[in-house]
Amino acid sequence: MKFNTSPISGTQELLPAEQSVFDRLKTQIANTYKRYGFLNIETPIIERTEILLAKAGGDTEKQIYFLTKTAETSKTAETNKTAETKDLPDQALRFDHTVPLARYVVEHNQSLSFPFHASQINRNYRGERPQRGRFRELYQCDIDVIGRDHLPLAYDAKVIACIHDALQTFNLPPLTIRISNRKILASFLETLNLSEKLPEISSIIDHAEKVSPEKTQHALESLTLSPAQVEQITTFMHIKGAYETVEQNLKNLLNDQFENLKTGLSELKTVFDLLNKKPNISNIEIDFMIIRGLDYYTGTVFETFLNDHRAIGSIASGGRYDNLASNFSSQKFPGVGGSIGLTRLFFVLNDEKLLNTEATFPIDYVLLPLSENEYATALLLADKLRASNHSVDIDFTTKKLGDRFNRAAKISQNAIVIGESEASSHSFEIKNLQTGTTTPLILD
Amino acid sequence: MKFNTSPISGTQELLPAEQSVFDRLKTQIANTYKRYGFLNIETPIIERTEILLAKAGGDTEKQIYFLTKTAETSKTAETNKTAETKDLPDQALRFDHTVPLARYVVEHNQSLSFPFHASQINRNYRGERPQRGRFRELYQCDIDVIGRDHLPLAYDAKVIACIHDALQTFNLPPLTIRISNRKILASFLETLNLSEKLPEISSIIDHAEKVSPEKTQHALESLTLSPAQVEQITTFMHIKGAYETVEQNLKNLLNDQFENLKTGLSELKTVFDLLNKKPNISNIEIDFMIIRGLDYYTGTVFETFLNDHRAIGSIASGGRYDNLASNFSSQKFPGVGGSIGLTRLFFVLNDEKLLNTEATFPIDYVLLPLSENEYATALLLADKLRASNHSVDIDFTTKKLGDRFNRAAKISQNAIVIGESEASSHSFEIKNLQTGTTTPLILD
Repeated sequence: MKFNTSPISGTQELLPAEQSVFDRLKTQIANTYKRYGFLNIETPIIERTEILLAKAGGDTEKQIYFLTKTAETSKTAETNKTAETKDLPDQALRFDHTVPLARYVVEHNQSLSFPFHASQINRNYRGERPQRGRFRELYQCDIDVIGRDHLPLAYDAKVIACIHDALQTFNLPPLTIRISNRKILASFLETLNLSEKLPEISSIIDHAEKVSPEKTQHALESLTLSPAQVEQITTFMHIKGAYETVEQNLKNLLNDQFENLKTGLSELKTVFDLLNKKPNISNIEIDFMIIRGLDYYTGTVFETFLNDHRAIGSIASGGRYDNLASNFSSQKFPGVGGSIGLTRLFFVLNDEKLLNTEATFPIDYVLLPLSENEYATALLLADKLRASNHSVDIDFTTKKLGDRFNRAAKISQNAIVIGESEASSHSFEIKNLQTGTTTPLILD
Repeated sequence: MKFNTSPISGTQELLPAEQSVFDRLKTQIANTYKRYGFLNIETPIIERTEILLAKAGGDTEKQIYFLTKTAETSKTAETNKTAETKDLPDQALRFDHTVPLARYVVEHNQSLSFPFHASQINRNYRGERPQRGRFRELYQCDIDVIGRDHLPLAYDAKVIACIHDALQTFNLPPLTIRISNRKILASFLETLNLSEKLPEISSIIDHAEKVSPEKTQHALESLTLSPAQVEQITTFMHIKGAYETVEQNLKNLLNDQFENLKTGLSELKTVFDLLNKKPNISNIEIDFMIIRGLDYYTGTVFETFLNDHRAIGSIASGGRYDNLASNFSSQKFPGVGGSIGLTRLFFVLNDEKLLNTEATFPIDYVLLPLSENEYATALLLADKLRASNHSVDIDFTTKKLGDRFNRAAKISQNAIVIGESEASSHSFEIKNLQTGTTTPLILD
């Protein structure tokens, strides 16, 4: 029979040259996270269903990949299932890093020192309907700072600064980090006596950039708001800029009632001011259009956009949550986190030709022994070059020399031919496979 | 309700300090593979069931984790299932790197240059009954060289040499790489007119080290062999050492019929001689007890044992297969591969106290600003230190200084207190958290 050998749709399978670019970006993120003091952890990709669904609603369940085994019997099934999970398989693939992190912190909290700085760079799984640029298997590069009982606001700035520096290593075109604080919108709507419509209005603001202004206005009107309220909300969501600008705009909008917003504004000012003390940062903007869809954020929220490629959407985002582990523990673990969605970012950067895809050759030297008599010399030379951290390929094929040069040129810039005279003299020449010129090899 | 926050049994979840040792070993393996010219690739963890079961027998199916979604309908199911897979879910988790590699090579063969050198360092999934030291989620670090139509024997030596060098970076106690060639046993049994019992006898030899000699003898006798045949096989399986020793022993055992074994012996000699030309290798031994359980090996096979910890079993193994992709393609892709089972190796090394677990501190400097007035100075200093590739933690908590020093000492050897005078003078002292001594910080 004929097999379909393409990778499953919604997964990203790269050729070796693309993979090496991807791996380089991943390493750059990991190194930045490490320099900021985040400790790498790895949680299993497989989790208990009841842990994954502890908080989530029905939509999450629809996206989860459950695990089954053909030999599964009721004997191996766990029996303490909750009502919501009792008809589902016991185990499933995690859909993000946050739920496993919450479980990890609760499970190991006696062994961790707080504020705990965790980084997680790994794949998550979402059973979304596959479409261009949406992945079912995706790398996410997360950092989180988890406090015990209390976590200062300075950590919000730290997470954003670290994500900023990680992205800086990519040499991307200009980008803007847009930050806000969810408490401000909540207090604003309270002031307008619209608290009970917070979820709907949040969702409308969150989508406002993806649709026309008319559609947003219509969506607000359909909530049975007064024309004045629609106008106030529309004005609010377009407030952005430096802190002083934002504060002045809010004062103009709210007059005396401005004071109601002070908790959120004071948090936002603290984070914004700290970020502006960082020497190499100039692309942070307060922007009330930033909401973040996920409902567990409680304060600071941020998203990151390439200025000339806004349609790509946010390439890195995150925020503050008051209690990471509220579902699993009575202890309080406030946290703040951020994430770079690397699989999707790689896809769009590649698609928009924004990646440095300069031909990079993975192999430093290809050795071409002319016959088996020169294998010993080739092995010795390879060992020496590898000891100096060079990557070395020995071509042991017996094809024509021209074919062997062609293969070498695909993976390296340098070939070293080893014939009788090189084997006896132990002196070698490096042939540049682009120019054809040769230079003597100098060994340490 | 109370949740079980432990990781699922059969997974390895590490604390940050253990994780950093694990990550170090993984990086050392990756760097060695790279120096040998292997190109990293990453295949999806999720695969089509029909690909995973194309060759495997019923035992594999029992170990596979299948994926289901609650919203799954027959519309999304693929319809070209084979008879064997039609009652199973369409997608599953891969159980090794070899099957996905075969699919990858067939799918992308037009874009690859052969001999293709692939490395894969990632997790695989096996639904085994969990037991101490056996994992359901496990890192395997594979290298494979895949030829097109033909692949010289020198690549067998290359794979073994590379695995050897990767293990050398671990500073393990003395180990021995034991190699054999499956063609020798096959020819030997043909000579004894026992070819049809090759599978049973292979299995008995493969298990011989794990049971008593009497049990092995009894197992052979139960195959209705003559006492002479049992004795010849027993003698054969104990042959080991350098090539000349092995050859002499076989001559003694077989007299004139020795010539029947020449293909396998010539291959073995080629690989063994090449390995012995490598400067830093001295722990290779031919050993006919080495068979490898997996039936796809067709020539060279090898396993690696710690001399003083044989009970751990093989820590790295592999071999030659004549046709990687026979199930998916009519093209011939002969290959040779090797694998280090890192999750299990880490577990046993840790268990046997063979890991270098010297207290390593993940953070180079912990900065302790005494109040918010010093945050700007701390951020500046952190940026400078990070630019020199140091990992820096800024402690923004407002706890007592003693508590902050205690936290710092858990993650670092060095603290830098930043008070009013440091903020104004911009000169800093490093406090060694073990000894309490201070030295001035010299910035570039």
